[in-house]
Amino acid sequence: MTKEQKIMLGHGSGGKLSHELISSLFLRHFQHPALTAMTDSAVLNLPEAQLAFTTDSYVVDPLFFPGGNIGRIAVAGTVNDLAVSGAKPMFISAAFIIEEGFPIATLEQIVTEMANEARHAGVSIVTGDTKVVGTGKCDKVFINTAGLGSFHVEFPPFPGQESVKPGDVILISGTIGDHGMAVLSARNELPVQSGLESDCACLNELILEVRKASSRIKFMRDATRGGLGTILAELCEKSKFGIEIQYETIPVRETVRGMCELLGFDPLYVANEGKVVIVAESSDAQRILLALQNHPLGKDAAIIGKVVEQHPGFCWLKTEYGSSRIVDMLAGEQLPRIC
Amino acid sequence: MTKEQKIMLGHGSGGKLSHELISSLFLRHFQHPALTAMTDSAVLNLPEAQLAFTTDSYVVDPLFFPGGNIGRIAVAGTVNDLAVSGAKPMFISAAFIIEEGFPIATLEQIVTEMANEARHAGVSIVTGDTKVVGTGKCDKVFINTAGLGSFHVEFPPFPGQESVKPGDVILISGTIGDHGMAVLSARNELPVQSGLESDCACLNELILEVRKASSRIKFMRDATRGGLGTILAELCEKSKFGIEIQYETIPVRETVRGMCELLGFDPLYVANEGKVVIVAESSDAQRILLALQNHPLGKDAAIIGKVVEQHPGFCWLKTEYGSSRIVDMLAGEQLPRIC
Repeated sequence: MTKEQKIMLGHGSGGKLSHELISSLFLRHFQHPALTAMTDSAVLNLPEAQLAFTTDSYVVDPLFFPGGNIGRIAVAGTVNDLAVSGAKPMFISAAFIIEEGFPIATLEQIVTEMANEARHAGVSIVTGDTKVVGTGKCDKVFINTAGLGSFHVEFPPFPGQESVKPGDVILISGTIGDHGMAVLSARNELPVQSGLESDCACLNELILEVRKASSRIKFMRDATRGGLGTILAELCEKSKFGIEIQYETIPVRETVRGMCELLGFDPLYVANEGKVVIVAESSDAQRILLALQNHPLGKDAAIIGKVVEQHPGFCWLKTEYGSSRIVDMLAGEQLPRIC
Repeated sequence: MTKEQKIMLGHGSGGKLSHELISSLFLRHFQHPALTAMTDSAVLNLPEAQLAFTTDSYVVDPLFFPGGNIGRIAVAGTVNDLAVSGAKPMFISAAFIIEEGFPIATLEQIVTEMANEARHAGVSIVTGDTKVVGTGKCDKVFINTAGLGSFHVEFPPFPGQESVKPGDVILISGTIGDHGMAVLSARNELPVQSGLESDCACLNELILEVRKASSRIKFMRDATRGGLGTILAELCEKSKFGIEIQYETIPVRETVRGMCELLGFDPLYVANEGKVVIVAESSDAQRILLALQNHPLGKDAAIIGKVVEQHPGFCWLKTEYGSSRIVDMLAGEQLPRIC
């Protein structure tokens, strides 16, 4: 198989071409005995019987953008979904839907990025699938990853949204809106802004550091589609309490803020791919903040607000000038195909 | 949400419309506490620590065809991949990539079929994802399912292709080619043939019966894309032995055989969605055959050949008239988007 080759329908046939593609590309990059066996399912041994299981499809457009690409997101997004559940990410599946005519060289770039990201996060890609559809029947390539993580005795699942109580603090692990604005800039829908870069990253290591620092974490979620705002609105809905966040404490890069203002986007709803929202008992707020800030991926972390008795079911954003507004869930779609 | 509504980009935004779609459609049909929690990962307890993990994307065209539809295939295909590994299928993920404008009523039909098939197979759909892409950026709807199964002490993983030895017998659980021909007929590429119906079904119950009947099974695989022929060719390659199959013993419905002859298809390479190939020690051949035939999904089961010392690496198909030919892997693509 040469890199000049293009994907043909036969590469999804389950026959000879599929086998060639799998052995010459996927197996070479995603090295794991369970995968190399090319059986119908990966057979895995897990140290604990309590597991986290998650899935996400990735349809980001364009495939490559400043700070990331569909391959990195496909691994990091699923790793993060496991990590914010409190699990140690362990195994990943990778399923590709590819448009006929897609360059094999580009597919290899994506696969390489996935392999690197998986290695970096300490997870193994152990099972997969490839389908090919005719030209015009999908947009270049879509990737689905499912993930399996295990819970360790000392780190059980987080208590969850329902355990959140007035007085609890809300933290974010860094600047918001970077991913959405980086993808938008890559679409050439606006002038290139220097310094715009996706925050796409695996957060499992950062989250482990935070867990070591505090056993009083109630809830975590990675702020992807829908942004920070949607997470907070949903948390109000589920917990039946109110939330107050301070506008000035929310970290936003100047370039991102400027671009959002220019285009009428609200950074609260712009997607991130490497930021986690943490709700914890206030007594541990500083310990958690320190643990976040001591890690390269959490250096801009901040305490941004708290859970309150007032206005149950609603999140209020307050500014230093005394004005305030309700933070609702994202309605409609700000930026389609952001991940 | 009314059934006349169509999918909008906002249904994939992660915001309000996504939440509405999830609660009013997916949660209603796929009822499971892990799913209802709407957390990033499903938290699961598994009785055993050895697991099977698999994934497949489904892009079948058309979405509905005689005997099945994309929803049933998406569940049955993944259940079968777990079952042929020897695992008890337990949990399934469901990830949708939907074209903007797709009718919600049709999505609900598909989701209902998935829920029914899962209930029937005894598996739970516990985590999921929805992405929406613009009109023309995918073909109606693609579904990915990943599956988790557990191995029980009395039913460990099958020894696998490498354990196959000369003298072992090869069985098929029923007629071949039904699925491929049913989908082809639904595409209106040929005159409607009465009695053509996909064999799309979950095989886990059938496989359990077979396991109870014999502990001398070496290898199983469901004959999907690439058909029976590709499985046998691959088995020769992996085992380093030869295979001989008898043409007359391979069950093929008359309508399927007729249509294949008319169109120049070889039933050996036509996809199935409810047939399993079993390789076992010859001493247990009759016990396995009986167990298969006693189950409705295995009533047409047959012993079709054996593993031989001769022509290592090659599978020969022999006819009663003494002629024979090599069965190679499927080259190219006979029928794109068959599953």
